[in-house]
Amino acid sequence: MTTPHPYLVGLVGTGVGPSLTPALHMTEGHAQGLDYVYRTLDLNVLGLSPDRVGDVLSWARTLGYDALNITHPCKQLVVEHLDDIDDTARALGAVNTVVFRGGRAHGYNTDITGFAHGFTEGLPGASTSHVILVGAGGAGTAVAAALLGLGTDHLTVVDLDVDRATALAGDLAARHPQAHVDASSFDKLSVLLPEADGVVHATPTGMAEHPGIAFDTALLHPGLWVADIVYRPLDTALLQTARATGCRTLDGGHMAVHQAVDAFALITGLAPDAARMSAHFRNLVA
Amino acid sequence: MTTPHPYLVGLVGTGVGPSLTPALHMTEGHAQGLDYVYRTLDLNVLGLSPDRVGDVLSWARTLGYDALNITHPCKQLVVEHLDDIDDTARALGAVNTVVFRGGRAHGYNTDITGFAHGFTEGLPGASTSHVILVGAGGAGTAVAAALLGLGTDHLTVVDLDVDRATALAGDLAARHPQAHVDASSFDKLSVLLPEADGVVHATPTGMAEHPGIAFDTALLHPGLWVADIVYRPLDTALLQTARATGCRTLDGGHMAVHQAVDAFALITGLAPDAARMSAHFRNLVA
Repeated sequence: MTTPHPYLVGLVGTGVGPSLTPALHMTEGHAQGLDYVYRTLDLNVLGLSPDRVGDVLSWARTLGYDALNITHPCKQLVVEHLDDIDDTARALGAVNTVVFRGGRAHGYNTDITGFAHGFTEGLPGASTSHVILVGAGGAGTAVAAALLGLGTDHLTVVDLDVDRATALAGDLAARHPQAHVDASSFDKLSVLLPEADGVVHATPTGMAEHPGIAFDTALLHPGLWVADIVYRPLDTALLQTARATGCRTLDGGHMAVHQAVDAFALITGLAPDAARMSAHFRNLVA
Repeated sequence: MTTPHPYLVGLVGTGVGPSLTPALHMTEGHAQGLDYVYRTLDLNVLGLSPDRVGDVLSWARTLGYDALNITHPCKQLVVEHLDDIDDTARALGAVNTVVFRGGRAHGYNTDITGFAHGFTEGLPGASTSHVILVGAGGAGTAVAAALLGLGTDHLTVVDLDVDRATALAGDLAARHPQAHVDASSFDKLSVLLPEADGVVHATPTGMAEHPGIAFDTALLHPGLWVADIVYRPLDTALLQTARATGCRTLDGGHMAVHQAVDAFALITGLAPDAARMSAHFRNLVA
């Protein structure tokens, strides 16, 4: 009688206490008949500076961890401590999932695959001829990589910090020569949005602690799809306004669930039930 | 809907790979509806010297471990790294269970309580007026503490290394002034055993890889109870001969199970089902 391998996974970052990812993994593990322990490892609580992520990685491996999810502010810092890194994650320079396998630490980025899978699931057939990305931070960077991987022809990156938008657009253009990637500023949205197929909002605005809408919703039009990265709340003011305008919409829950779905698959080698994990997630945030 | 705390426990020592303790804990945890991950942390495999046990302890706490079992060669080394230590474990100077609770590392010794509980379970009413302990190593030391805690009036410690036996007897006598504790040599067993109530065998002889019987079984007599610490196999040549002589016997499984039963209770605060854990253990070693 052999019993399934019991899994041990952690989430490394700051402010990770309220994360829903541990519950998503453990509940899906349970449903698959696995012992699955998922710990939040909050660097602030533990009194560890983010540059100790290499030590955390090394000791987690020593102490029998199967994998770690990595979040702010360690997604870039962790890269140098890996033995192998997935091409997409390497190109982005950011890793959110580390799997210890065969004595080696393998890095992946399921923010990218998670957005891509969530987009395909929630906005099937949506046109990606010209997409506007609002927000060039960590989440926006992963979304941009996903959109280009999905075949977006023209991606325009907009950020309050135009230099940051320009730098990201330059990086993306170099890695995706088949696409047209450029940067712009918020005041150009009045020209950009009327001509675009879709817009992805990837700033913190609209989160419970940052209420509001990042840009002028008078620019929305029924031919535009609107995706939000924010998932607390799921139904942001932006999405409510977009629906009222007649836009197809995609809430942030799709990316949040699929980053966990994809990580679960990488960690266990088993196929998670994405619909079950999504239902669980929506129950948790409701 | 709250789910029970998922437990994370490890076993630190050398050669711990074949230990049955992880399976005992995880199966009992399962039966109680808990996620329970128990990792073997073999210092040889991990390339860590035993004097790194303080680092292992510190990082295990940081990485969300609830508790560690500690075995050879770290039971003494770990003591200086604890915040609190149970009186019995402190007196022995050896800890086999560390529980992280309220930010502190608490040390216990369930080898002692495990032998005591197993003895009471398996040899109820056995007389302890004069008991012979054969073997003054780590296991023998825990057994001696247990026997004195159970009210043994006269304990005689026998070891091939008479200095080791004398040192242990001296320590025990100082800590248990109400009892008579002395040391002797193997060649005196011919005088000791005929007058004794019971004998506990606590050397490796009789294990699958050390076959044989540690002392001359012609000295056994029906009035003597015989306890063995060896549990692989459960039914040692010593116990077979003792039964054939008419002695009451106690196999090593009782101590092996009850050290795990007691550790499970300390770690979880829940009452384990000792009969269920014993049945599982005997199934594993069969």
